Amino acid sequence: MKRYERYADEIAALIRHGTLSPGDRLPSVRQASASRRISPATVFEAYYLLEGRGLIHARPRSGYYVSPAVAATHNGDVPHSQPKQRSAKVAISELVFEVLGSVKDREVVPLGSAFPSPELFPLAQLAKHLARGMRNLDPWRIVEDLPPGNDQLRRQIGRRYAIAGMSIDTDEIIVTSGALEALNLSLSAVTRPGDIVVVESPTFYAALQALERLSLKVVEVATSPRHGIDLEALAGVLQRHEVKACWLMPNFQNPLGSRMPDERKRALVAMLAAHRVPLVEDDVYAELYFGAQAPLPAKAYDRDGMVMHCSSFSKCLAPGYRVGWVAAGRHARTVERLKLMTTLSAAIPSQEALASYLEHGGYDRHLRKLRLALARQQQVALDTIAQHFPAGTRVTRPDGGYFLWLELPQALDALELHRLALLRKISIAPGLLFSADRRFTNCVRINYGYPDDRKIVAALKTVGQLAASLL
Amino acid sequence: MKRYERYADEIAALIRHGTLSPGDRLPSVRQASASRRISPATVFEAYYLLEGRGLIHARPRSGYYVSPAVAATHNGDVPHSQPKQRSAKVAISELVFEVLGSVKDREVVPLGSAFPSPELFPLAQLAKHLARGMRNLDPWRIVEDLPPGNDQLRRQIGRRYAIAGMSIDTDEIIVTSGALEALNLSLSAVTRPGDIVVVESPTFYAALQALERLSLKVVEVATSPRHGIDLEALAGVLQRHEVKACWLMPNFQNPLGSRMPDERKRALVAMLAAHRVPLVEDDVYAELYFGAQAPLPAKAYDRDGMVMHCSSFSKCLAPGYRVGWVAAGRHARTVERLKLMTTLSAAIPSQEALASYLEHGGYDRHLRKLRLALARQQQVALDTIAQHFPAGTRVTRPDGGYFLWLELPQALDALELHRLALLRKISIAPGLLFSADRRFTNCVRINYGYPDDRKIVAALKTVGQLAASLL
Repeated sequence: MKRYERYADEIAALIRHGTLSPGDRLPSVRQASASRRISPATVFEAYYLLEGRGLIHARPRSGYYVSPAVAATHNGDVPHSQPKQRSAKVAISELVFEVLGSVKDREVVPLGSAFPSPELFPLAQLAKHLARGMRNLDPWRIVEDLPPGNDQLRRQIGRRYAIAGMSIDTDEIIVTSGALEALNLSLSAVTRPGDIVVVESPTFYAALQALERLSLKVVEVATSPRHGIDLEALAGVLQRHEVKACWLMPNFQNPLGSRMPDERKRALVAMLAAHRVPLVEDDVYAELYFGAQAPLPAKAYDRDGMVMHCSSFSKCLAPGYRVGWVAAGRHARTVERLKLMTTLSAAIPSQEALASYLEHGGYDRHLRKLRLALARQQQVALDTIAQHFPAGTRVTRPDGGYFLWLELPQALDALELHRLALLRKISIAPGLLFSADRRFTNCVRINYGYPDDRKIVAALKTVGQLAASLL
Repeated sequence: MKRYERYADEIAALIRHGTLSPGDRLPSVRQASASRRISPATVFEAYYLLEGRGLIHARPRSGYYVSPAVAATHNGDVPHSQPKQRSAKVAISELVFEVLGSVKDREVVPLGSAFPSPELFPLAQLAKHLARGMRNLDPWRIVEDLPPGNDQLRRQIGRRYAIAGMSIDTDEIIVTSGALEALNLSLSAVTRPGDIVVVESPTFYAALQALERLSLKVVEVATSPRHGIDLEALAGVLQRHEVKACWLMPNFQNPLGSRMPDERKRALVAMLAAHRVPLVEDDVYAELYFGAQAPLPAKAYDRDGMVMHCSSFSKCLAPGYRVGWVAAGRHARTVERLKLMTTLSAAIPSQEALASYLEHGGYDRHLRKLRLALARQQQVALDTIAQHFPAGTRVTRPDGGYFLWLELPQALDALELHRLALLRKISIAPGLLFSADRRFTNCVRINYGYPDDRKIVAALKTVGQLAASLL
């Protein structure tokens, strides 16, 4: 982390927490340089970075000011959800597939998509690594790269853990066909039909689908946009139910965007360890942080091999290559065998391309660019929502990822809004996708991971107007 | 099918069924040309083909003779298995993973492997198609190629069905991460925990693992090396049990190599349709036939959309690319959704490379070469076994694929043989991998899909001597 990044990060935090408000003037470069004992160039670079992220703007001959933002957009303003804490069988509607299907149509503006724009990724460079790797492939590698997977790739993944200060044995890293498979296999490894599993509320619909498919029961636990899952509520659930696993997303939770503070992650892991409950940790957005410091996963606090840390390259580097992994702790051999039994191995060409790119491709440079692009797009989306959505709309302002969670006035039927929007070739993700018991009916998840401002702004404006017309 | 191929096929059948015996002289070229009304050149080409497959050999100035073969190597000589026809819970031992693990070691001669030699495949050509396809990839294809999968690839697969005389709607073809995923998803689509599923006896261990993983019960039905599953026995099982699915391999069954005659396939499909039992058809070796005519799958006789035809390119073209498919009939949408929920999609680069290769790469030319190589290698293996295995050893002589099934004298413990062989860096697949109730203890599956004759012959000789020493 460079000094100017650290300084920019501090200011971003002040804005996020409301200490600096829209319209507030930032310290001048000279003031900041003197008070912080950093060079004027460093201050300039920090301000430039914040401007790129849309958080501040310059006024000629006057200085830098906090940009106007949506009313109440900082995290925490969307209140805790209050799910029923009974275990329930899961039944996900056709809706998930309807929404997934709609985003395949190029004509549809994909605000409801789970994927960022494929144009954000270094596909041409990856293709070069792919071609080079496969041209010279030793045929025997096809057998040798069976699970746990390509050695070079697993070492590269291990190296990134090490840089983050985590000590993960390469032996516990199993390469999978994307994070979705890592999550599903991890859940399978520690549950049997009928078992109870804890998820966040709201939660990523794929977790609900996995539970349904494996005949598991769900308990949803209240989750806040600011702090992640409510640890007190979780403690109560662990007392009352025989929970066999948790499937949680401590970083940039889908759909809330919440980033659990590190001390809470530590407490979470300790609490689960005390109950001998394995944690399936979905961490696919970790690399998409906007601050200067990568967030640590809950896995960083795991002392007992009970956390199965699942991630992939699909959201940050190589969509469509279908390469993910799990650092599965004490369950690594079980997951490896489930992988061998169900899909045998991840595609060799994809593994080869990623191993080579990670070693020589400039991954960190790409990531810096990507983070900046997403942060800027978040601001564009927030500004548009502030301008065009009905009064009373509340929206999160996550520190990373590419989702906003909107809570519209209680009377609004987000499913109806989804249908009206789709008629106008715009997809959105209605809130009830994210709960097993059809709550969040007035909520919407918006994907801002598309760089075409004009199209996105127009689509958001249309959705806002449709919402107003429904009220 | 060319005329000389047809003629060669007829002679091969005569040899297989014992009408022509080892040492018998074939009709002279002139005789055959006159009696069959074909040109001498056609007869020459047929004999040349048969010689390449190791079935006949020329003696200078004397003519062509049927090659010496193992005593009793034609199909049918390994007698029917007699499984108990009770439904049972499945519990597969560590052994499958032990054997799978051993073949990853380059030092080990992989007679126990499930894969043919990676050196048999046009990997360099595939890499070219891969590079070309990905260099010019439209980024939006990453989203558009979500299940059911790459359109061009699905059309190519549909075209191959059409050439075989089958009319399969492209809509029912779902691209998967290899055939293993196709099989697993198909089975999931039609069963719930506790359901009863019929498999062959012996059967491919992955079927047993899938049943175990999904908490299904198994009924094993006797299967013959000549005719495939015993239809009378199956009829009885369907009467006595509430069977929810069958997982069968009518073509070049693993491990027996049996190819079910077409009229039996028709009867099988009719019987299952009458009981409303879906068939999960594993057809991954269909392209590896040694005769002139490709075998039809059971799917060819499906009138009700009840057959889920699973195959892949892993055994015949592109190992490690992890591209398979299922033509899933009435269950296509269920399988598509299961795919979306578990691994999202097959790797885009792999799909792209195969779509391009199938269109421009000369797949049929490659297949002809591959079939010839495997047929030749089968003969080498059979000759070696005849020379070096203990008296009383019986072995199949399949019309395709790359497995031999050996039944050694009853007293032999194949598991012990496996362990002794592994100490000498040779893997074999002991028979009890292929049954849920630990039968076939004196049987061994041998993979002859490796073109290194010297190494394979030496290894087979060692295994034969070890077997003799155990008796």
